[in-house]
Amino acid sequence: MMLKVDAVPDRPTLQPTDRTRLRRRRDRGDFSRETVYAILDAMPLCHLAYVGEHGPVCLPTFQWREGSHVYWHGSSASRALRAAAGSEVCLTVSILDGLVLARSGFHHSANYRSAMIFGRPTLVDDPQDKLDRLEAFIDGLYPGRWETLRPVTASEAQATTVLGMPIDEASAKVRSGPPVDDEDDYALPIWAGVLPVKLQVLDAEPDPRNRADVTPPVPATALTLG
Amino acid sequence: MMLKVDAVPDRPTLQPTDRTRLRRRRDRGDFSRETVYAILDAMPLCHLAYVGEHGPVCLPTFQWREGSHVYWHGSSASRALRAAAGSEVCLTVSILDGLVLARSGFHHSANYRSAMIFGRPTLVDDPQDKLDRLEAFIDGLYPGRWETLRPVTASEAQATTVLGMPIDEASAKVRSGPPVDDEDDYALPIWAGVLPVKLQVLDAEPDPRNRADVTPPVPATALTLG
Repeated sequence: MMLKVDAVPDRPTLQPTDRTRLRRRRDRGDFSRETVYAILDAMPLCHLAYVGEHGPVCLPTFQWREGSHVYWHGSSASRALRAAAGSEVCLTVSILDGLVLARSGFHHSANYRSAMIFGRPTLVDDPQDKLDRLEAFIDGLYPGRWETLRPVTASEAQATTVLGMPIDEASAKVRSGPPVDDEDDYALPIWAGVLPVKLQVLDAEPDPRNRADVTPPVPATALTLG
Repeated sequence: MMLKVDAVPDRPTLQPTDRTRLRRRRDRGDFSRETVYAILDAMPLCHLAYVGEHGPVCLPTFQWREGSHVYWHGSSASRALRAAAGSEVCLTVSILDGLVLARSGFHHSANYRSAMIFGRPTLVDDPQDKLDRLEAFIDGLYPGRWETLRPVTASEAQATTVLGMPIDEASAKVRSGPPVDDEDDYALPIWAGVLPVKLQVLDAEPDPRNRADVTPPVPATALTLG
């Protein structure tokens, strides 16, 4: 699969479909590509729903975005990847931003950003395309790292499967801010508020087998997630 | 649905099935209930795969565990909850523990703990059971909070659907530690190691509409996730 080159640029707003239109809490829905892309770019961890031999499977994996496409990869021996190629999948990225404590159990909630993409992935089967996608994946997380690495061998490339799909049928959902309680409940002597949560990248743990003359790449220490 | 009371206690090790047996990387698989339970208890955020009207859906939601059952809830008007009741689902909790930088692109990886549970959820339809489950959910996150809250009304209980399923067909997958490189690659002058990541709970943000006489509950500030 080649990276899609559109004669007409993608529209900034995604068209809602039966699968992405929100039936409830429409205030939390966001169909702008900008929001969907920002969520994908902030968090490599995604969950992929596909229908396996015995029913639905929810698989955690890493995703990355290039332009209006999302990609993921895995072992060429993986059942999950084989099952997903050409079938309908739903790829979801969720970032937990806070726990929302209200004055009633009913209004407890969470602050979050999530993006959901539906589609039928295809295999990136051209060898150079595949290497280009993997380079974008590594350099997206660790800018400039790819060219410092021992190059990919032919058998490694063969053992790696990359899948991608266009971000066409997608939506984001976002909640932020304090709890929203029933008006009468604000008078109650109950603490309410938000416990913000944030994924922190801690100090690098060098491999004990590192050569004495290597130093951590600066961009890696500047990584932010979520 | 009543909380299951087993005449025979659950065995400490889960029986692998076609869906949970690992075909590859068996060293990362763990079928002990202890490991699966610890992952569920560490992270309320889960992703639920179910087959909707138009194919697979991957829905982020919160889960909680009581004994050998896992539960989740939502609006009684939710399509997702209705679709899941009685159908096969896969509920997955994933905790990202670190990014693993190796000396080749191929051996880059992630440290993580994930638990995957397959089953057919049923509705918790007895009203008192439902309240008991919701109490366990709130108090699991914020010990002692339930009894401080404005009680649940009949219409709130009716508007809330709780689903649960036994943790019978489940497995955990865990990776930890430094990168594992090809033996020859350890001689290369490339920094390798782990960037640990950790979900931090930050300082509470009180609701601006809090009464002046309320103070944050101590257990809430001691919350750890992940």
